[in-house]
Amino acid sequence: MTLLVMKFGGSSVADAEAMRRVAQRVVATHRAGNQVAVVVSAMGDTTDELLDLAGQISPGPPPERELDMLLSAGERISMALLAMAIEQHGVPAKSFTGAQAGMRTDTAHGRARLLDVQPERVRATLDAGGVAIVAGFQGISTDDDITTLGRGGSDTTAVALAAALDADVCEIYTDVDGLYTADPRIVPTARRVTRLTIEETLEMAAHGAKILHLRAVEYARRFHVPLHVRSSFSDKEGTWILVGRPLTEDTMEEPIISGIAHDKSLGKVTAVGIPDRPGAAAAVVGAVARAGVSIDMIVQNVSTSDAHTSDISFTIPDTDGQTAVAAVRALQDEMGFADVLYTSHVGKLSLVGAGMRSNPSVASDLFAALAGAGVNIEMISTSEIRISVICDQSDLEDAVRAVHTAFELDAEEDAVVYGGTGR
Amino acid sequence: MTLLVMKFGGSSVADAEAMRRVAQRVVATHRAGNQVAVVVSAMGDTTDELLDLAGQISPGPPPERELDMLLSAGERISMALLAMAIEQHGVPAKSFTGAQAGMRTDTAHGRARLLDVQPERVRATLDAGGVAIVAGFQGISTDDDITTLGRGGSDTTAVALAAALDADVCEIYTDVDGLYTADPRIVPTARRVTRLTIEETLEMAAHGAKILHLRAVEYARRFHVPLHVRSSFSDKEGTWILVGRPLTEDTMEEPIISGIAHDKSLGKVTAVGIPDRPGAAAAVVGAVARAGVSIDMIVQNVSTSDAHTSDISFTIPDTDGQTAVAAVRALQDEMGFADVLYTSHVGKLSLVGAGMRSNPSVASDLFAALAGAGVNIEMISTSEIRISVICDQSDLEDAVRAVHTAFELDAEEDAVVYGGTGR
Repeated sequence: MTLLVMKFGGSSVADAEAMRRVAQRVVATHRAGNQVAVVVSAMGDTTDELLDLAGQISPGPPPERELDMLLSAGERISMALLAMAIEQHGVPAKSFTGAQAGMRTDTAHGRARLLDVQPERVRATLDAGGVAIVAGFQGISTDDDITTLGRGGSDTTAVALAAALDADVCEIYTDVDGLYTADPRIVPTARRVTRLTIEETLEMAAHGAKILHLRAVEYARRFHVPLHVRSSFSDKEGTWILVGRPLTEDTMEEPIISGIAHDKSLGKVTAVGIPDRPGAAAAVVGAVARAGVSIDMIVQNVSTSDAHTSDISFTIPDTDGQTAVAAVRALQDEMGFADVLYTSHVGKLSLVGAGMRSNPSVASDLFAALAGAGVNIEMISTSEIRISVICDQSDLEDAVRAVHTAFELDAEEDAVVYGGTGR
Repeated sequence: MTLLVMKFGGSSVADAEAMRRVAQRVVATHRAGNQVAVVVSAMGDTTDELLDLAGQISPGPPPERELDMLLSAGERISMALLAMAIEQHGVPAKSFTGAQAGMRTDTAHGRARLLDVQPERVRATLDAGGVAIVAGFQGISTDDDITTLGRGGSDTTAVALAAALDADVCEIYTDVDGLYTADPRIVPTARRVTRLTIEETLEMAAHGAKILHLRAVEYARRFHVPLHVRSSFSDKEGTWILVGRPLTEDTMEEPIISGIAHDKSLGKVTAVGIPDRPGAAAAVVGAVARAGVSIDMIVQNVSTSDAHTSDISFTIPDTDGQTAVAAVRALQDEMGFADVLYTSHVGKLSLVGAGMRSNPSVASDLFAALAGAGVNIEMISTSEIRISVICDQSDLEDAVRAVHTAFELDAEEDAVVYGGTGR
């Protein structure tokens, strides 16, 4: 018997009608002879409404323990309603909080890490022929306090539950029908990708593709959980994400490039005119990391105006711009560099594909495509299966379209985007 | 050090402003050197909104386990927000779900009974100098499922917590400033009662007074928990409810009557012309009880038209009218009685006071007052400290006012009703 974990996000359960549609799909999957565990997020705007209430109470940041208690109410509501909707069809269904589903986390409220998953009650419900519904995004800490897993938490819950149950597949339902070669809102001719390796998916998620959260993909890679990203509005197959790529004849013809990710959430810090001595980069980057800011790309280059100094540039989440600049500025006197510059709203384009490993012309083709579109490249970084460039954010969408065409990713027809949000 | 349990209902935490007012009161009580545990209900309309969502999903009655899961989200929201509001003042506060507060119940979803209360985490929070906030109305069953305690559940949580913590007092905050000699919406000259015995309170609650739920009062009597019913809008003392009455000089002058309760939620069933034989009453009442309907007052009298038959009348919750009539009707052929009559919307007036034990004229004074107001009495029942009469519901308010005046309960000024609801 096949065991599936089906994960539905907030927009899939936004109202009673959407909830009934999800229930029908779960019931059909159960009736087809599968064991089904469902992971569900809070309904549509619930989280925002709860945050708004907290804002009315606490002008400053609310206490994290209590914020987690507050937000965890959201999934309680959606999962209980979904269980009711499923039972309407005569299929027994039980909802479980993170605690009841055995989601044990550390004590880092708001961004808790899963330490252990012991879903005995979920397993017992499935074995008894019922559907188990698990609250996404939440767990219980080693101190027995309610915790939330932070952004992408429900995807992570689903993948972790699938790993613990040794599920055959973890299905991530969303309002698009899979992963695309680029964001269809920007590239209308983007094509749906039928399968990706987990490594490619990781690069896509890490560099701006929003369908799957990086953390969930990391979890899937670590525990070898097959993922299937598909639409909650249609029955057709979406994108399969598998660990490694099966060596069949098909794979000989795999395209070089799987897709293009883009990211508009970054800013760029540059420390200008750093006197050239060992350890300068480590000092700058270390100061920023100690300030709690995660660094994305780093580029160091010898300054053109003065051979004895260099510039260090790095990208960070734009929201951490002030913190990062302050951390670097604190080193200025000691290290003797000339200035700290900050550019907000930079754009990042990433070309991802396992095929580029053996294809040396990818980088040059990329740069040629960008040049042809008049896009100036500010920074470059590469991995074995990815090339990322930083450019002016106002050029980013043109850049994505030009590169998509240059690598022959365009489909003949425009992509269908459901739900209007493109997510 | 004094240990208080403070209970706030949904209207006391209806919005952010009300929540902040409650927080100020809790903080002031804590700063005055008391240990404070708070029990809180869901905010204002939350429960109704959640029930409405459930109704959109399930046209029929929703599965009870899932309904409890759904409704329990309400207190999570209010208690987390209240903790945030208290922490704003620099006082550490932690909220606890029913499960975290050790509220173990049976498995009767929607009307669970508390089996055991083990509030170790609440105690630890108080001992560490913090305020503990406990979700009212909810617990965790012996099967580790979320349960709710049904009507009056938050009062019951508060009293049970006070008992388990051996609290000095359980304060029930509401939007009136105590218990009144009658409902001030009906009798504007009703007087606030400064103290009541637990037995009087039990009679008041059992016979229609709505401030305190019967179940919570029963719990308080069983575990000797002193109650203080007071206003969340003012600092003045409300009504103290104590087990037994202290034998001081004051008590010599206690009034005979403590107050008048009234109830509009009842209907009356009459089985007419039951052939006179032993066991007839037991058969009728037993059938109704087996149908799950709780019976309030019972009166049997020999029929005036025929000396060999009698009529049995009893009152029940009006909402159970059809069920009760069907249960009695099923006995009709076997027992050979003439008919089953049902009167919905009957009125019940109850006069309560420990002083009436030693005062034989109370009943006759009551009947005289009702006769003077033109109110026809349909049924009468008495206990040692209460006399109840059933009348036409359209006469009930006039009856309450007439009796209130006759027993010299009127104050010189009108009562102040806060919040507009009189509850």
